[in-house]
Amino acid sequence: MSVFDIGFKYGATFYESLRTFKHKIFKLDEHLARLERSLRYVGLVSLINKTEMAEIIEKVLATNIHLTEKDDDVFISVEVTPGVGFPHPLMKQKEQKPTVIVYTSPLPYEEYAHYYIIGKPAVIVNVRNVPPQTFDSRSKNRSRLYFFIAKREAMKIDPDAFALLLDLDGNITEGTGANFFIVADNTLYTPTTRNILNGITRQTVIELARKMNLPVVEADINLYDVYNADEAFFTTTTYCILPISRVNGVTMNKEIPGLCTRRLLTAWSEMVGVDIVKQAQTFMEKRKLIW
Amino acid sequence: MSVFDIGFKYGATFYESLRTFKHKIFKLDEHLARLERSLRYVGLVSLINKTEMAEIIEKVLATNIHLTEKDDDVFISVEVTPGVGFPHPLMKQKEQKPTVIVYTSPLPYEEYAHYYIIGKPAVIVNVRNVPPQTFDSRSKNRSRLYFFIAKREAMKIDPDAFALLLDLDGNITEGTGANFFIVADNTLYTPTTRNILNGITRQTVIELARKMNLPVVEADINLYDVYNADEAFFTTTTYCILPISRVNGVTMNKEIPGLCTRRLLTAWSEMVGVDIVKQAQTFMEKRKLIW
Amino acid sequence: MSVFDIGFKYGATFYESLRTFKHKIFKLDEHLARLERSLRYVGLVSLINKTEMAEIIEKVLATNIHLTEKDDDVFISVEVTPGVGFPHPLMKQKEQKPTVIVYTSPLPYEEYAHYYIIGKPAVIVNVRNVPPQTFDSRSKNRSRLYFFIAKREAMKIDPDAFALLLDLDGNITEGTGANFFIVADNTLYTPTTRNILNGITRQTVIELARKMNLPVVEADINLYDVYNADEAFFTTTTYCILPISRVNGVTMNKEIPGLCTRRLLTAWSEMVGVDIVKQAQTFMEKRKLIW
Amino acid sequence: MSVFDIGFKYGATFYESLRTFKHKIFKLDEHLARLERSLRYVGLVSLINKTEMAEIIEKVLATNIHLTEKDDDVFISVEVTPGVGFPHPLMKQKEQKPTVIVYTSPLPYEEYAHYYIIGKPAVIVNVRNVPPQTFDSRSKNRSRLYFFIAKREAMKIDPDAFALLLDLDGNITEGTGANFFIVADNTLYTPTTRNILNGITRQTVIELARKMNLPVVEADINLYDVYNADEAFFTTTTYCILPISRVNGVTMNKEIPGLCTRRLLTAWSEMVGVDIVKQAQTFMEKRKLIW
Amino acid sequence: MSVFDIGFKYGATFYESLRTFKHKIFKLDEHLARLERSLRYVGLVSLINKTEMAEIIEKVLATNIHLTEKDDDVFISVEVTPGVGFPHPLMKQKEQKPTVIVYTSPLPYEEYAHYYIIGKPAVIVNVRNVPPQTFDSRSKNRSRLYFFIAKREAMKIDPDAFALLLDLDGNITEGTGANFFIVADNTLYTPTTRNILNGITRQTVIELARKMNLPVVEADINLYDVYNADEAFFTTTTYCILPISRVNGVTMNKEIPGLCTRRLLTAWSEMVGVDIVKQAQTFMEKRKLIW
Amino acid sequence: MSVFDIGFKYGATFYESLRTFKHKIFKLDEHLARLERSLRYVGLVSLINKTEMAEIIEKVLATNIHLTEKDDDVFISVEVTPGVGFPHPLMKQKEQKPTVIVYTSPLPYEEYAHYYIIGKPAVIVNVRNVPPQTFDSRSKNRSRLYFFIAKREAMKIDPDAFALLLDLDGNITEGTGANFFIVADNTLYTPTTRNILNGITRQTVIELARKMNLPVVEADINLYDVYNADEAFFTTTTYCILPISRVNGVTMNKEIPGLCTRRLLTAWSEMVGVDIVKQAQTFMEKRKLIW
Repeated sequence: MSVFDIGFKYGATFYESLRTFKHKIFKLDEHLARLERSLRYVGLVSLINKTEMAEIIEKVLATNIHLTEKDDDVFISVEVTPGVGFPHPLMKQKEQKPTVIVYTSPLPYEEYAHYYIIGKPAVIVNVRNVPPQTFDSRSKNRSRLYFFIAKREAMKIDPDAFALLLDLDGNITEGTGANFFIVADNTLYTPTTRNILNGITRQTVIELARKMNLPVVEADINLYDVYNADEAFFTTTTYCILPISRVNGVTMNKEIPGLCTRRLLTAWSEMVGVDIVKQAQTFMEKRKLIW
Repeated sequence: MSVFDIGFKYGATFYESLRTFKHKIFKLDEHLARLERSLRYVGLVSLINKTEMAEIIEKVLATNIHLTEKDDDVFISVEVTPGVGFPHPLMKQKEQKPTVIVYTSPLPYEEYAHYYIIGKPAVIVNVRNVPPQTFDSRSKNRSRLYFFIAKREAMKIDPDAFALLLDLDGNITEGTGANFFIVADNTLYTPTTRNILNGITRQTVIELARKMNLPVVEADINLYDVYNADEAFFTTTTYCILPISRVNGVTMNKEIPGLCTRRLLTAWSEMVGVDIVKQAQTFMEKRKLIW
Repeated sequence: MSVFDIGFKYGATFYESLRTFKHKIFKLDEHLARLERSLRYVGLVSLINKTEMAEIIEKVLATNIHLTEKDDDVFISVEVTPGVGFPHPLMKQKEQKPTVIVYTSPLPYEEYAHYYIIGKPAVIVNVRNVPPQTFDSRSKNRSRLYFFIAKREAMKIDPDAFALLLDLDGNITEGTGANFFIVADNTLYTPTTRNILNGITRQTVIELARKMNLPVVEADINLYDVYNADEAFFTTTTYCILPISRVNGVTMNKEIPGLCTRRLLTAWSEMVGVDIVKQAQTFMEKRKLIW
Repeated sequence: MSVFDIGFKYGATFYESLRTFKHKIFKLDEHLARLERSLRYVGLVSLINKTEMAEIIEKVLATNIHLTEKDDDVFISVEVTPGVGFPHPLMKQKEQKPTVIVYTSPLPYEEYAHYYIIGKPAVIVNVRNVPPQTFDSRSKNRSRLYFFIAKREAMKIDPDAFALLLDLDGNITEGTGANFFIVADNTLYTPTTRNILNGITRQTVIELARKMNLPVVEADINLYDVYNADEAFFTTTTYCILPISRVNGVTMNKEIPGLCTRRLLTAWSEMVGVDIVKQAQTFMEKRKLIW
Repeated sequence: MSVFDIGFKYGATFYESLRTFKHKIFKLDEHLARLERSLRYVGLVSLINKTEMAEIIEKVLATNIHLTEKDDDVFISVEVTPGVGFPHPLMKQKEQKPTVIVYTSPLPYEEYAHYYIIGKPAVIVNVRNVPPQTFDSRSKNRSRLYFFIAKREAMKIDPDAFALLLDLDGNITEGTGANFFIVADNTLYTPTTRNILNGITRQTVIELARKMNLPVVEADINLYDVYNADEAFFTTTTYCILPISRVNGVTMNKEIPGLCTRRLLTAWSEMVGVDIVKQAQTFMEKRKLIW
Repeated sequence: MSVFDIGFKYGATFYESLRTFKHKIFKLDEHLARLERSLRYVGLVSLINKTEMAEIIEKVLATNIHLTEKDDDVFISVEVTPGVGFPHPLMKQKEQKPTVIVYTSPLPYEEYAHYYIIGKPAVIVNVRNVPPQTFDSRSKNRSRLYFFIAKREAMKIDPDAFALLLDLDGNITEGTGANFFIVADNTLYTPTTRNILNGITRQTVIELARKMNLPVVEADINLYDVYNADEAFFTTTTYCILPISRVNGVTMNKEIPGLCTRRLLTAWSEMVGVDIVKQAQTFMEKRKLIW
């Protein structure tokens, strides 16, 4: 891509991360609706047409899916920028042509498959999540220097750990690309969407839980809540639900995954018709053999 | 460049904007020292070697300078990213090779030459500058979605105007890529570097002013100060010092440029041996003839 | 009135704005109860007696109503101050006699009648709503310099626009004398009363909506929510419900009024037995003929 | 005055309080310059003409001064509003005629004369000073509900006490119409002008102190500083400098006035050629005889 | 106890205050569960064993209960510290032995018995409650200098009054060792647990109220809410529910106790089988006779 | 001491940590003046008499000093509480007798002697320093749960590290019982005393530096400043000046101690007539032989 692309010059790239289950894209409409909202927030909704985007994405998938084994699935990346902006990035926007990047890649099982079993550690970092007055995290974008710093800060403390970011008031917000839940007294608690990405996996987990009669509360959560919780997990597009073993070194789940986490993982697998834990284990092992 | 570059994926690009006067780079050492500080802030200082960077920059300039007329000068862009990160952007960093982009381009006179004469309008936008707890603006980087939003917000209110950003407490910080000064009672006031880029032009103006016995105060500035100031101007690498005609529609300078602004422009031109206002006018006119 | 009135000297005037429907005062009891709460908040509840106030208001209305056509209605202003305070405004309060101002005036249709059809633009201004630690906006008072500044700021950007104020955290609060609603997915969202006037029209709209099975959520709202909403409207005593055409230049309603806004307008008209839109159009036209 | 005056409807009155020494107005130019700045802040600078205002004020004084004894002095109040605004307060401003109120009155010695001797108690109230994002306290105006509340809160705790207001961060700001100083180790400390009125008496005291080689520091002050100070005093137009006996019940000055306060009072009296303490005592006693 | 105990050196003491009804400990399990959460928050959960703690507490009670009359009850204090830390308080923790202090004492009826009848005054103090970023108030501990300051500040204003603390945003939080409720329109409002102790009495009152069909709302409460409430009361272990007569001098309850407060007191007495008001009156009188 | 001591019950203990050089107490007067200020802040200044306290401290030292070798020195702890408060801690204060604890102990060389050579690591923790609105850190007290949590948090990340605390705005404040300095461009920077203890060692270092023509700036410092500094060190009573090797894993000083740090250590040793580094090494070694 061009070094003069506004996506590169301003971090003004808006994106969605999708995946397939049984070779079908999961919640494509929801992802495109969110992408549209991300763009409308910055006044660029005219850059895309949802129908056209859906066609492109399906076409890219159709072209590449033969590379994927029948029981495996793929990751799909969709990125939109306002296009090349040299030399006056914001002045001449009439004929502006967006840059659209769509590609598939194997699911990165080696990053998470074993954490279904042993749990993922999380570390609360010093860097704080961006406040909505600067920009709204619900507009999913690539001005993510603070995520980059957060990830490196977490890895310095524990090479295995994901970062967990607080907001400026000290409430827990999200991981770097993952939403966060705790379970206490058979109730799910997750931060409100004020300072976080309104994750589609997060929303799906909330709906699954409610169907299972697990109450879900969206509320401010802080360290006292986390340390005294029974279970904790991350959610994101690729691994769906990932149990957390400890936060800041404090053990979370007595067993991994905890009871509610396990029930949610099972419910998810049933919903999509794929045993997501087994799939991740299987294909991580296969790749090891190949590589 | 690669769509898998971490500069694109995370906005983790660190950069400097330089220019020449009489075909010599202005304050190259200061720019490289700041670039090094930008990188050290995120733990990536080992990505560059200042001597090597200086050589690359001088070489790019030497290669391209023949395209520039004798009395004209050039803009130089220097950008560094942690390199390509696919598929695990932060995990495997041992053999990480940075992406380094250096190019020259004509100075964008058509963007500012006439504002030396009529003054540039500024508009205070709703979007707030990023707080240092998220990341420090002194680490000059390209996670600038909020600058992009700010520019568009300003242009909607006044197509001619530059944006001016407040911090979360309502203090004035900076423009999108420019520092801000006011003059009141023959004293210069400019925001502290707590929430802004510590501009090299800003620092040079401070030093010039002190040599001219104009006191300079680095302090919190807000709207009451601005509306009651005698003069106001922006500073940045390309135009050096640009008089502001009005802020939020309130006329600033009785004449453009104001007395102190004019003295600073003259002192700058003497310092670099180039009449910067005349140069901008001359070559803007020339280009109009060509294009 | 006296220039030594504390209402003038301190902005310590507490007021209610009422209107009639079919020549009957709308929710007089609710207005007087709120006035009492406004006064109790500053320790001045003894200044008024609700029964007596009701009598005064009814008497003023009875005296003036003959000036109003049968199908028209009137605006009623009720203001209370602690009285004249010269020369020691706060010291000698035993014999303090309040200043009470009650008057009627024609409804200002020319300010809003056409916006039922084309929608009212709104602009988010730089000035921020007063925080409850300084004083509580629910105590409806005339220390409104910030509203005055906000209105002028909005008019500079768009002469047609109403101002919309954020709180110190960047959440949307209210217009200058009007509450704010958005509609998204057939749900009404409106800011909590933490930083705003608890409008009686606002409360009535909430109750109407609930009767119509439109869910209503009182929550923090910010720009992402507004730009991605389906409809938006203001509420106040005079126009009741006024559709918003755009916020910061971003088009809100596909049609004006939006579907839910229209249903609420209809429900309101039915509730009061007056077609409020038609009334405003009719009498605005009539006055044009006269004036 | 009209009940439709915008000064009354919005608290949008801008004012100055002046006094004479030896029947001459003290720092009239400084007061008018500040009034102009107050008005420019809200975009109303065109409402007044400083020369004309000076003439009006001098004329009012000349007319009334015969009522004042030779050794006594008078208080002068100057108030400006945008004028009558009915029925559309902000819409039709072309022919807007400001309301200007100028009057003289006896100095209110009975409010402060004895506190030169025994010191004035101060109480820190719960109500917090208005933040500059809402409006700037340096624009001296009559939207002062929070001052009204603060005064009443202080009087409930100690009927004798003046209120002292903190800002939203807990720093001390000012009294209700008075600036605040402490003395520690022979240095004067007073809050910065970020959140307070930039008092002309305050500025004069700073200049007097510097002439006397008393260092003056403008800084954030909080309760620890106050309780551990050697002296404290208020400054305002009428009493100039008033020693504080205690803050929140904590005794401040070992003797009243403290050493530095007394030196400043003496210096002030010498500067204006009036023994301000004696004047206040004398005429307070005289009035008692008359009234 | 040792002056080298970490409970003394760091205020790192975690505690519970319990009482009996009819000589049985009220909600011992809930108290021990909260103590465990307090300790887990600071990583010291291994210091205690709930079963063992329960045995110790029951044993202390059994030993002392013969000192208490049949119709009277006792207060029980339970405190845990990390033990003696000299000379390296935090370094050598392997063999760390906690300090555990358990004692009973008579209930302090003379502090509150008459306030059931006349109501307790409350005063909002300047000192603000500790923010959760410093430490979480739900971890019940003895680093309470701010409570100590708050109590003294309240007593200076009204020797009879309890202190009421705001949080840094100006919301009401709690008394010094007591939760706070208001009643308005037959609904109970009480601050959320974000900045306060999650009192076991508070929780019990919430459950009692819900059983009685009194709605309970946990929400931000501020002064406007309090001054306009119908009733207010404190809750704590010893007195259970204590009516408040006035806040900052503003009368709260028309009668003491207010209607809802009285119903809750009655419901409490029924729940525990002890008329708590009568018990307090009776034994306060008896002690007066003895002492 | 009594478990009913208010020092234990409320963390309301005020203290000073002193040491000797050549068996003389260093800056006893400054310590007692600060203790007095700590107590005056909470209204307890009458608890102590400085002359009497000085005598007690000198007597305790005289009694114990024979235990200390000629070239060694001792640590002295001074603690004051309001005394025993059972059963009504704050009510009956007339005859209140303070608890005063004074003891000497060997200097804890084994905690820091080797860090003069290799530098001490520091880690920025999640827990934030207490804001002055809760209580002022300059009132040196033992409500230090947040220090206790901070220390444990730091040790979990790096068992060797000291904790460094930020304030609520993200500025660096202090260690847990130590002030913090950085050196950049031969200038010392240290946080202002707004949120920290005003350390006597800190003040002495400032004075030493100024005598050595090292400029000292008291200012807000954040991570960008620290990571880009040339040197960093802690100051406290016992070790005086301790070089920092790294902050959050980022190497600070190229050599340990850095040039300015070494000059300050030398100047300190000369000032007190004791080679403080050598003393610490020598006696740490001696003790190892004994223990």
